[in-house]
Amino acid sequence: MDTWTLYTAPGTCALATHIALHEAGAAFDVVTLDFATQQHHSMQFLALNPKGRVPALRMPEGVLTETPALLLFIAQRFPQARLAPLDDAFALARLQEFNSYLASTVHVAHAHKRRGARWADDAAAQDAMRAKVPQNMTACAALLESQLSPGPWVLGENYSIADLYLFTLTGWLEADGVDLTLFPRLTAHHARVAERPATKRALAGLGS
Amino acid sequence: MDTWTLYTAPGTCALATHIALHEAGAAFDVVTLDFATQQHHSMQFLALNPKGRVPALRMPEGVLTETPALLLFIAQRFPQARLAPLDDAFALARLQEFNSYLASTVHVAHAHKRRGARWADDAAAQDAMRAKVPQNMTACAALLESQLSPGPWVLGENYSIADLYLFTLTGWLEADGVDLTLFPRLTAHHARVAERPATKRALAGLGS
Repeated sequence: MDTWTLYTAPGTCALATHIALHEAGAAFDVVTLDFATQQHHSMQFLALNPKGRVPALRMPEGVLTETPALLLFIAQRFPQARLAPLDDAFALARLQEFNSYLASTVHVAHAHKRRGARWADDAAAQDAMRAKVPQNMTACAALLESQLSPGPWVLGENYSIADLYLFTLTGWLEADGVDLTLFPRLTAHHARVAERPATKRALAGLGS
Repeated sequence: MDTWTLYTAPGTCALATHIALHEAGAAFDVVTLDFATQQHHSMQFLALNPKGRVPALRMPEGVLTETPALLLFIAQRFPQARLAPLDDAFALARLQEFNSYLASTVHVAHAHKRRGARWADDAAAQDAMRAKVPQNMTACAALLESQLSPGPWVLGENYSIADLYLFTLTGWLEADGVDLTLFPRLTAHHARVAERPATKRALAGLGS
């Protein structure tokens, strides 16, 4: 039980934590849940994470959830990986502000495509939510595009946990009906993150 | 411009940042926006915060938004106020996990009551969202209630930024159709936070 185990599922925001673990050089195993067969709602997984969501990171100290919390924790536990400006409170706040916006606004806007049942029982209402996803995700992308200046990374010269989280969510834009040609900075940023070895290992579903 | 200015509005989550500033002993002014007359969508405010939301904290370094980011920033800038376990990465991650859940799940569930237009244009769909708010907020309250053990505070013996944020959101439960008698720990916690001088000053709309 001394090793860390990441619980993830394909196509979810758990990819961000997965990439961060590889960037940090952490030792961890991966358990990939199958949402189609409701493995995230099994008694076994709910005992681990009562929210029935991924990511969840099992460590000797306990099980930790919520992407912004996990990313900052990994950055703090592996300071040599320089994944966050840990010695500058304002710069760190800028990073947390960015990640909090991704979690509370962008991810939530995206979730209204397939997870509308969380917020309304009515099928027609869920259709109405789905219809608005392209508009909302385009508005989110426009705000994010404006924040990617001068680049190349979210914080400027230094790669951080904000970049791998942004990469995870910009990976959803095209399927959410966003015209990517409107957002050249986001597109170039996504391609830059995709080239990193840590990203490739996470996308392949690998542990360390 | 050397003083800090908090932009807030009654009944919003900006109350959490307002309380935190008083707990920290920060020097700050308050600007209260009138949402009824769309002051948060004025050109003047959008120049400050393009998201058109509160809280926004104007400082010499820039304007900072997003409650979880603001709360951690205030705790780090005023370490003598002991508002977060800054020297323990796992304990801090537990706090961030809690605050991230409040921001991304609880606040979002609440927002479907009055802000449904964010996620669907159709009036019937917005009604369907509103109808589900009591059920969703009750589920959130149940999870939060289970995490308030042993108490008295979210982290146990030590008051933190998680408590004032929780207080802000539990203040919405009754109007959101939640039966508070089901949640004695949340109710007692809310009353304890309400008694603190910093909370009273924030609720009165006061700066320092």
